[in-house]
Amino acid sequence: MNEVTVSSPATVANVVCGFDILGFALAEPCDSFTVRKTGRRGVTIINKDNYNLPTEPEKNVSGVALLALLNEVKEEIGFEIESNKIIKPGSGIGSSAASAAGVVVAANHLLGNRFSQEQLVEFAMCGEEVASGAKHADNIAPCIYGGITLIRSLNPLDIVSIPAPELFVTVIHPQIEVKTSDARQILKRNVSLKNAITQWANVAGLIAGLMKSDYELIGRSLEDVIVEPVRSILIPGFDELKTRSKEAGALGGGISGSGPSVFMLSRELKTAQQVEVAMKEVYAKIGVEFHTHVSVISKQGVQVKTKKG
Amino acid sequence: MNEVTVSSPATVANVVCGFDILGFALAEPCDSFTVRKTGRRGVTIINKDNYNLPTEPEKNVSGVALLALLNEVKEEIGFEIESNKIIKPGSGIGSSAASAAGVVVAANHLLGNRFSQEQLVEFAMCGEEVASGAKHADNIAPCIYGGITLIRSLNPLDIVSIPAPELFVTVIHPQIEVKTSDARQILKRNVSLKNAITQWANVAGLIAGLMKSDYELIGRSLEDVIVEPVRSILIPGFDELKTRSKEAGALGGGISGSGPSVFMLSRELKTAQQVEVAMKEVYAKIGVEFHTHVSVISKQGVQVKTKKG
Repeated sequence: MNEVTVSSPATVANVVCGFDILGFALAEPCDSFTVRKTGRRGVTIINKDNYNLPTEPEKNVSGVALLALLNEVKEEIGFEIESNKIIKPGSGIGSSAASAAGVVVAANHLLGNRFSQEQLVEFAMCGEEVASGAKHADNIAPCIYGGITLIRSLNPLDIVSIPAPELFVTVIHPQIEVKTSDARQILKRNVSLKNAITQWANVAGLIAGLMKSDYELIGRSLEDVIVEPVRSILIPGFDELKTRSKEAGALGGGISGSGPSVFMLSRELKTAQQVEVAMKEVYAKIGVEFHTHVSVISKQGVQVKTKKG
Repeated sequence: MNEVTVSSPATVANVVCGFDILGFALAEPCDSFTVRKTGRRGVTIINKDNYNLPTEPEKNVSGVALLALLNEVKEEIGFEIESNKIIKPGSGIGSSAASAAGVVVAANHLLGNRFSQEQLVEFAMCGEEVASGAKHADNIAPCIYGGITLIRSLNPLDIVSIPAPELFVTVIHPQIEVKTSDARQILKRNVSLKNAITQWANVAGLIAGLMKSDYELIGRSLEDVIVEPVRSILIPGFDELKTRSKEAGALGGGISGSGPSVFMLSRELKTAQQVEVAMKEVYAKIGVEFHTHVSVISKQGVQVKTKKG
């Protein structure tokens, strides 16, 4: 086989109280990448979308991820990437993770799946580092594993899949820029022990709620006393989005990744659609451009769509 | 019915990374309390053990808990408590919680179980406040519910039972005094965000490990980067206890409650017994007096043993 096309999903990292450790995959939007095996070392990138991402592999998230993978390959081969991104860079729903994870899963497929999922996460994290300046896996892991993932530890890497009942996600993406590095800089370096305890009690409640399929407990646990109070000031209308979404039936939610997207979880598709309506009303009033997505939390990560050769 | 005798178990609070939010019940040691319904308001305490605890109900953990319960009872009744405590006060395995929880469960039984488990926790917490100066439920909740419990929130009270596979506990109780109030005072009021994230990643891993019956994950998650580094200096030989216990096969463990007891979790009874041997060797060398206990994590909390009248 010489060519494979994969679909790589958007992901939501942090998940309110689970800052830096939790993430989940959406069924859509998804990026599409076609990866071809070539006869010479190195990576070539062809952009088929309009995002004008760099085509030098060392400056491109997909490129760096594939170079990290190639580093572990002895054969004289390389890859050509045809990039059809849908997920807008900087949206806060794992655009760079989709790029990095998508191409390494595709390349692994072309190599007879010789690398483990954990190894693929390691390769993809090298790409993520280019985008955000920090190696993190909270988007990469759910993008590759699917479902809801916990990063218990980065070093050594310890990824835990968290079983969960069906949950629907409403995402609103305000068309403003929040740089991950800026969103990181405004965080306080120290937190009170009291708030930290509240946070880990909610993290414990969220994991238990997911694994028990206890929607009420999930909702009660979706509270962030540490990061949200600081970062939400960067997002216009954040408090009203949350209030109106809960009135519309959402279990809860918060900032997706480092923003600016905001997500809400609901038990039913219908509720998630009503939450979308409420979010749209809030943003129509504010007058900031936006996109919205409604999706189930997907059990699948990156998926191989077509193969050739 | 006018008289009931209950068995009230020792409990381990905090559970390494789960500071202030997790606890579990042991099958033994247990206190025994006989509670009798009387015809006049108030509580009388008769000590049948040698711990010389105060018999004025307002100064006694059991007394205060029962007075809190009586506050919600309209009838002209009161209670007499016969206290046969086994769990040594100040040991760090929930002696005061056993007193408070035991008598409220007994009294509730005499009143036809009119109060919910949550209400009983609230009454018992009033007793716990007398002992430690703070209302907390991390020993009370597992003492009443049995098994492993999460206190997601104290206000409003939100107790979550955490399903878990069979686990065995080895406890060593050094015969030294560590006051809960002192152990609380030496804690830092602020922690680094980095350490807080490590802690809630481990809390999430521990809950997932317990609910998945994944013993390896339980072991990897039993790490406390916040409280143990500060409090363990109060416990002679702490690091060696931990190292030797893990060498003997323990999954992990740490300080029980605010100490001085130290507990270790093992997958098998035999391992827990080998851990006991290792702990004894460490303490024989140090030359501090100690007691040890080996027990399963009990699915049962306070149990009614005999009834009369």
